[in-house]
Amino acid sequence: MIVYERPIRFDEVDPAGIVFFARYANFAHEAIESFFADLEGGYPALIQKRRIGLPSVRLEADFRSPLRYGDKLRVETSCTKLGTTSATLTHEMKNADTLELCAVVRQIVVTVALDSFRATAMPADVRAKLQENLG
Amino acid sequence: MIVYERPIRFDEVDPAGIVFFARYANFAHEAIESFFADLEGGYPALIQKRRIGLPSVRLEADFRSPLRYGDKLRVETSCTKLGTTSATLTHEMKNADTLELCAVVRQIVVTVALDSFRATAMPADVRAKLQENLG
Amino acid sequence: MIVYERPIRFDEVDPAGIVFFARYANFAHEAIESFFADLEGGYPALIQKRRIGLPSVRLEADFRSPLRYGDKLRVETSCTKLGTTSATLTHEMKNADTLELCAVVRQIVVTVALDSFRATAMPADVRAKLQENLG
Amino acid sequence: MIVYERPIRFDEVDPAGIVFFARYANFAHEAIESFFADLEGGYPALIQKRRIGLPSVRLEADFRSPLRYGDKLRVETSCTKLGTTSATLTHEMKNADTLELCAVVRQIVVTVALDSFRATAMPADVRAKLQENLG
Repeated sequence: MIVYERPIRFDEVDPAGIVFFARYANFAHEAIESFFADLEGGYPALIQKRRIGLPSVRLEADFRSPLRYGDKLRVETSCTKLGTTSATLTHEMKNADTLELCAVVRQIVVTVALDSFRATAMPADVRAKLQENLG
Repeated sequence: MIVYERPIRFDEVDPAGIVFFARYANFAHEAIESFFADLEGGYPALIQKRRIGLPSVRLEADFRSPLRYGDKLRVETSCTKLGTTSATLTHEMKNADTLELCAVVRQIVVTVALDSFRATAMPADVRAKLQENLG
Repeated sequence: MIVYERPIRFDEVDPAGIVFFARYANFAHEAIESFFADLEGGYPALIQKRRIGLPSVRLEADFRSPLRYGDKLRVETSCTKLGTTSATLTHEMKNADTLELCAVVRQIVVTVALDSFRATAMPADVRAKLQENLG
Repeated sequence: MIVYERPIRFDEVDPAGIVFFARYANFAHEAIESFFADLEGGYPALIQKRRIGLPSVRLEADFRSPLRYGDKLRVETSCTKLGTTSATLTHEMKNADTLELCAVVRQIVVTVALDSFRATAMPADVRAKLQENLG
């Protein structure tokens, strides 16, 4: 499990006073960037130098309790299924102070060569990081 | 079924050249705003004057084919399940020119009184609009 | 002058109930995309096929009166200065219903070859469109 | 001067491979939230409990050098003018690794009572924080 935390920002909160639901998909991507941060060059090098992407083919989110402005987001990310070219990442999104579960986001990503947008073999360091964090 | 169309904007496209996956959740919300546009005062009055919200409790998205800069988005929205206080909206997101299916987004919303954030009865005009567009 | 209009969206409004100030920069870009829409292939072809970009080197915005959820945005865009490789675009952003002036955004853009990020000659059709809309 | 740093995120980069210019206005707001973070309850309490806002009446940005995906943002924020109800904040936005200056954003904010949206006296702790960081 890899943990990512940061405060909720003003521009993420909607006129109803709660974090806008679409933002949780952005949080999921930030958590993935953090998940792979200690690969050489991190996620940016994966995309830009190695030209490997992990686009989502499916996203599921269950919203349990709203996050509000002033809260701190905590995302706990595990790999809950590991295939040949695909993986399921499960993000438990919590209020970092109370540890209340606010949303569960599951996302199936597939390894693609960005220049052709075709499925490709998962790089060994990506697979190792997923395997270390099976949950 | 209610149809919502608009061009993809530059700031919706990621460095890999495709619409960023989180944006589809924003598109779903825009489609809902459009779905309820001919209620009196539209969705803004529902939220701001009548203080009724339709927060999502669940979101599911299947991504089939990327949208790119220069494409025009078309969202076809139907109500695929209608409960007492909740409803499922299904958005078929297409390339407006080719009609290729790019993503299917399903979203379960629940009627809440915004001042208490508690489930409340679905207003008659909201229910009628959903019923007219059962699919 | 080229006019661009669309409703304010829910996710553009901040917890204080007004359009978040950074969004006006996004509006300016949308207005530019609309400004050049009838070039062959529009702004997307300019960027993606012709590999010409118009990045901003300076932005100035004066905020006069807030836009709110339920309002419709109207942007009136003129070219207020035309140089060899650069141009100043001035966007008067109004409430489309009342015509109240909400913000004035001025933006200096420069023509660059996207592959080198260096200033390049302004294409004839881009220059013609700017000249037609000098104001 | 108060320093705020964080990595550039994937969804902040445009199809041309650089941070989209409108994002710098979002960065300016994040830097303000960080600037006032050690007020009691921080910026969220200022807005939500004390009902005091600091909306921008003017924004100026000069873009010098692009930030890219993989870069880390560094914002150095000072108060460069302090009035009775208004203040000018100047943000030097740099590449945190090379310290190259990427953008200078100046923003004039005014103290308003959020319930009336009228100018109001600047709270003592807000003024003190600005005064400590005059530059």
